[in-house]
Amino acid sequence: MKICRFNKTRVGLVEGAEVVDVTAALDLLPQVRYPLPRHDPMIAHLDLLMPAFAAASRSGERRKLSEVSLESPVANPGKLVAAPVNYVKHLEEAREQKELHQNNAAQIRVIHETGLFLKATSSLIGPSDPVTLRFPDRRSDHEIELAVIIGRRADRVSAQRALEHVAGYAIGLDMTVRGAEERSMRKSIDTYSVLGPWMVTADEIPDPSRLDFELKVDGVTRQKANTRDLVLSVPELIEMASRFYTLEVGDVIFTGTPEGVGQVLPGNRLHAWIDRIGAMDVRIC
Amino acid sequence: MKICRFNKTRVGLVEGAEVVDVTAALDLLPQVRYPLPRHDPMIAHLDLLMPAFAAASRSGERRKLSEVSLESPVANPGKLVAAPVNYVKHLEEAREQKELHQNNAAQIRVIHETGLFLKATSSLIGPSDPVTLRFPDRRSDHEIELAVIIGRRADRVSAQRALEHVAGYAIGLDMTVRGAEERSMRKSIDTYSVLGPWMVTADEIPDPSRLDFELKVDGVTRQKANTRDLVLSVPELIEMASRFYTLEVGDVIFTGTPEGVGQVLPGNRLHAWIDRIGAMDVRIC
Repeated sequence: MKICRFNKTRVGLVEGAEVVDVTAALDLLPQVRYPLPRHDPMIAHLDLLMPAFAAASRSGERRKLSEVSLESPVANPGKLVAAPVNYVKHLEEAREQKELHQNNAAQIRVIHETGLFLKATSSLIGPSDPVTLRFPDRRSDHEIELAVIIGRRADRVSAQRALEHVAGYAIGLDMTVRGAEERSMRKSIDTYSVLGPWMVTADEIPDPSRLDFELKVDGVTRQKANTRDLVLSVPELIEMASRFYTLEVGDVIFTGTPEGVGQVLPGNRLHAWIDRIGAMDVRIC
Repeated sequence: MKICRFNKTRVGLVEGAEVVDVTAALDLLPQVRYPLPRHDPMIAHLDLLMPAFAAASRSGERRKLSEVSLESPVANPGKLVAAPVNYVKHLEEAREQKELHQNNAAQIRVIHETGLFLKATSSLIGPSDPVTLRFPDRRSDHEIELAVIIGRRADRVSAQRALEHVAGYAIGLDMTVRGAEERSMRKSIDTYSVLGPWMVTADEIPDPSRLDFELKVDGVTRQKANTRDLVLSVPELIEMASRFYTLEVGDVIFTGTPEGVGQVLPGNRLHAWIDRIGAMDVRIC
């Protein structure tokens, strides 16, 4: 099932080039006041909602995907976890560009030492919103990544059991401004985390470790790789993260970007594609 | 006004050694279903709630503070922002302990270069919950900090206007496991962020830059300083953070810890005090 959020508050199923509005099914979700739950309510109730979505899709309004505004498929992530230099060739690339990493030796160490970092949830947008470059005098880069959406609380789970905790997958863009600050600041600028175009539920991607993906800037291929080249696989990332902190339902893991990272400029159009998920176009402004 | 959360879902006003239950006033908050707001609903509606809390306190049930369980005064922070080495003497201390910071040169640079880091919201507890050490073979340290609770959205605000965006203050414990990983991972372990004992509204602390504070471990003073010695002041931290990302209502800024950082062990009892806020005791287990 491909579940999208669109036009601010609507939820839809993606079928080919169309989206079927299944928002009515959300009436099954509980009302809350305070304190709010610390998880994403839609992802937390997928077992209840997926049959309701299927039922609602029989009578739901159909629109062309090209005519709706796509939001982040996760509305309420508790945290955005991200993997630094998790493809060997990207590590080599970073080491060759030392001038970009002044005073920041930590940023070109291997992931086993560096661990994972956090991106602010306030940086999250959907693919129809533009990435807005914040510091014109500093270089901002594109990074395409497979994004993993947690579906079941994960506290110290083993890699062997990790995929049981995944609700689904999406494309993530981990936009980055270069500089001396720690990653958790440079990658947390408003609009610097893009998630989309929708969530593909985990049943459609039983093995996330063999997905081709590609990022083009204005039609020119910049990054092209396969998730089989991840240093730490999706299950290993979940194991590593959940050794430190509980992954809550709706948390998103950006799994790291391969070689080919490069600068983006206002006016660029990014085209991001991952096998079995789909494609999205994102404007830079 | 000193506003606390207690016994899981109750809200109270602290008056001397008592807490007055004013939970009934929360009925003024809107009900929501999905998507959830990306801010803390109680902090966002303080203008409405403070008169209602005052009214409710006339008839609210009174309990001894010592007999309730205190929760984090912020239930739904969107992000926990934290300042590294923001007291000069703590920077000197870190530089003298290089063996603790192997492969991690970034961790003893000045804050103007390093910027701020993030702590996972899933690490947040109140003072009545114990800090549970996760890696017995690694050193975990205490760090007491003034914590600032954002009350009004802050997007690129100047230091001059920054305090207008503060809802209140609390004591923060930024617990830390030592090691090679980036701060945003080592400081995000479950229970490694303590906020309490309550929120003191900003009107009671017009100037956060002259507050004495102290941390004792099992009755022995370990950290003792004054916020006047902050490298970046509270307004400057808000300015720096909001240049990168929007601070949402309920976001918390841990302002950094002074010299005296040291190891904690299971069984220790931390006593943390900040002038004009109050004191709290936190167990290590």
